[in-house]
Amino acid sequence: MPLGILTDLYQLTMAAGYFEAGKAAERATFELFVRKLPRNRNFIVAAGLAQAADYLLNLRFTPEEIDYLRSLPHFARAHAGFFEMLAGLRFTGDLFAVPEGTPLFANEPFLTLRAPLIEAQIPETYLLSTIGFQSMIATKAARVVKAALGRGVVEFGTRRAHSPEAGVLAGRAAYIGGCEGTSNMETGMRFGVPVFGTCAHSWVMSFPHEREAFKRLQNLLGESTVYLIDTYDTIEGARRAAELGRPLWGVRLDSGNPMELAPAVRKILDEAGLRDAKIMITGDLNEHKIHEMLAARLPVDSFGVGTELATSADAPTLGVVYKLVELDYSGTRRYTLKLSEDKRTLPGAKQVFRFADHDLLARASECPSCPPGSPPSEALLRPVILGGELVEPLPSASEARKHSAESLAKLPAACQSLFEPHDGWNVQISMELECLYERVKRGVAE
Amino acid sequence: MPLGILTDLYQLTMAAGYFEAGKAAERATFELFVRKLPRNRNFIVAAGLAQAADYLLNLRFTPEEIDYLRSLPHFARAHAGFFEMLAGLRFTGDLFAVPEGTPLFANEPFLTLRAPLIEAQIPETYLLSTIGFQSMIATKAARVVKAALGRGVVEFGTRRAHSPEAGVLAGRAAYIGGCEGTSNMETGMRFGVPVFGTCAHSWVMSFPHEREAFKRLQNLLGESTVYLIDTYDTIEGARRAAELGRPLWGVRLDSGNPMELAPAVRKILDEAGLRDAKIMITGDLNEHKIHEMLAARLPVDSFGVGTELATSADAPTLGVVYKLVELDYSGTRRYTLKLSEDKRTLPGAKQVFRFADHDLLARASECPSCPPGSPPSEALLRPVILGGELVEPLPSASEARKHSAESLAKLPAACQSLFEPHDGWNVQISMELECLYERVKRGVAE
Repeated sequence: MPLGILTDLYQLTMAAGYFEAGKAAERATFELFVRKLPRNRNFIVAAGLAQAADYLLNLRFTPEEIDYLRSLPHFARAHAGFFEMLAGLRFTGDLFAVPEGTPLFANEPFLTLRAPLIEAQIPETYLLSTIGFQSMIATKAARVVKAALGRGVVEFGTRRAHSPEAGVLAGRAAYIGGCEGTSNMETGMRFGVPVFGTCAHSWVMSFPHEREAFKRLQNLLGESTVYLIDTYDTIEGARRAAELGRPLWGVRLDSGNPMELAPAVRKILDEAGLRDAKIMITGDLNEHKIHEMLAARLPVDSFGVGTELATSADAPTLGVVYKLVELDYSGTRRYTLKLSEDKRTLPGAKQVFRFADHDLLARASECPSCPPGSPPSEALLRPVILGGELVEPLPSASEARKHSAESLAKLPAACQSLFEPHDGWNVQISMELECLYERVKRGVAE
Repeated sequence: MPLGILTDLYQLTMAAGYFEAGKAAERATFELFVRKLPRNRNFIVAAGLAQAADYLLNLRFTPEEIDYLRSLPHFARAHAGFFEMLAGLRFTGDLFAVPEGTPLFANEPFLTLRAPLIEAQIPETYLLSTIGFQSMIATKAARVVKAALGRGVVEFGTRRAHSPEAGVLAGRAAYIGGCEGTSNMETGMRFGVPVFGTCAHSWVMSFPHEREAFKRLQNLLGESTVYLIDTYDTIEGARRAAELGRPLWGVRLDSGNPMELAPAVRKILDEAGLRDAKIMITGDLNEHKIHEMLAARLPVDSFGVGTELATSADAPTLGVVYKLVELDYSGTRRYTLKLSEDKRTLPGAKQVFRFADHDLLARASECPSCPPGSPPSEALLRPVILGGELVEPLPSASEARKHSAESLAKLPAACQSLFEPHDGWNVQISMELECLYERVKRGVAE
């Protein structure tokens, strides 16, 4: 498992530069957040922290990786001491983060990392990639699950995920976002996520007759049998499934128009006395198609969602950034920000305080007061790694899924809508944080 | 590195079913292809074969993976012999594939896999995911590189890729599609892809003054120095870079309006006598923005493209499918197809013959005639693995990149356009293949 080297070249040229400049002892604080919510998203469900923490706890450079660096022209002027330092590099810093499954909004940190400058800089690429991707998928899953109105949704998208490993993590993130499980076996084994699946069209095609394919499946799977009825003719397939009857879980439709087929198939099953047999729909689904089917009261019990879920196809990128907000050196603290016209950032380490009806983005040192009698706010960022050591075991994927469901249920209906809300969630910026921004902005103007 | 278990559950329930049904000895032929080109794409550059072949050559199940399967209810009725078979499973079949870098069109196989049924079924998920993803990214890269009109394009998208490993493979695929290289160090080390990068905004922000940050970078990188000039004020940044002057490669702009900033920055550099200093543009680029900049004759020498390239953001899914086309048992061959109304497939193993102005999709056994005097057609699918053994070492990423550039250059201008062509590439279906389809279709109607 490559770790140190799985980063952008510039993280390492900067590391060499910090080393040369004698800045290795400076303690940097970075925050990971999105500047704005993507199109079609009213919140982001944070996910990927377990992999981020794993990465930090295991970060190191192998001798082969260091030899590779030495071979590059970019490091021709780097001191031998830099490579020695890299060979012994471990993450000794602190990580604060919101628990997986927490819905977040623009500018709210998913995590705050504080460490010696080089240890804080190198992880940027990996952290952005694993937190950004899993949060994007957990968010998409939450939307699809919401659309399914309590019917089960299973993630079936590994084959269309952006690489096999993306499929493994998509299955995990989709589960955190509310899916019942995934088809991905590695996800099941590695993260304890429930796995689902029975057969593909190739199964049906591999037997001379559809009936034989169905019968064999029933022998193998008993009450878990799901007849895939659309290989040749869906209505004929449904009749064959009904003839074979019990034991079965139900049937799956993967093509054709479900608006016509689902009621016809339901009728065939019911007339055969199989009222408890379920209908699962798969094939290029998304939250809007599911919403439409259920608005039309289509008799569907379960959905398998693949491509669009495992790639968040309608919003396939999440603009996560990782920004330096503080730098400590010999007892002095310098707050940093970026003034680029379209990319401003707020300086200083922050905390997100969640109240019943709004968030307060504040300085990490603040302790906001609550109106008397109102419930106290919750500080979302919590210590995960301190001094390079994990504070306590992280929640399992199953616990993160529970946290996600509970947290999403507390959001107002407008936020939970599949469509743009009139009023999004209110994220206020504390007076102290605004003052710091103005002070630093004036100071930095040289 | 998980291999056997990195698949969908239904591949393994089907494997158990094939084992029970005594079909383990049947030899299946599967083909991997797209039914239609995605929106905004006039071809697909095949990529990912090296990882697909690696997977097949190393496919196996660990004892822990087999224990996990035994723990699942889906395998409660499976024979002990099935698990023993899995423990010893190796890929013993044949793989035929088009070389990486070959542009393909709808219905043309990226690969044909022929093996005992179980060995052919289990790889489906992994093959689709790695070939689909890398081909999607190589294709996007080819478009971006085309738009850059000979200027260098570097892939900078690891941080927004769908998981860290997706970033590694995106860098490889983008290079095959024509990029100069990538920021991803693991891609550089693992695949010999050139790596690029110098510093981020956090570098500039970590020093009290921009000038010091620039000077330190110059000390470290010499003629490779790229000043990142937009952290505070781009024009001021350009002046500071010009004052420091040589040695340098040039400057990078990551925000603001390049239509205004690039000419202004060029003027500052030129007036300082730095006519050879280059300007690199980065920040949310894609082929259309690059096209627009160059159409306006903007003075830009190089582009760094991240998010949209590493996610193929405008077409983030590629509908690759893996379909059973033949089944051989005791000397009998059965051709298979799927008749689902919106998902029909053509039966039988195929070959793609590429002529100067069209392709012929034919049966694998055909030997199409060429008009007298015309150059012979090229058969695109070639043996890669025979009897479980690699036929010869696969081309490097660099060789695949060369093949891609040469093959794309042979396509007509309409195909190479960034926009929809009036006439796409002509893919004809051979008479023999059409006849087979009609015969099988009638036969399968039971």
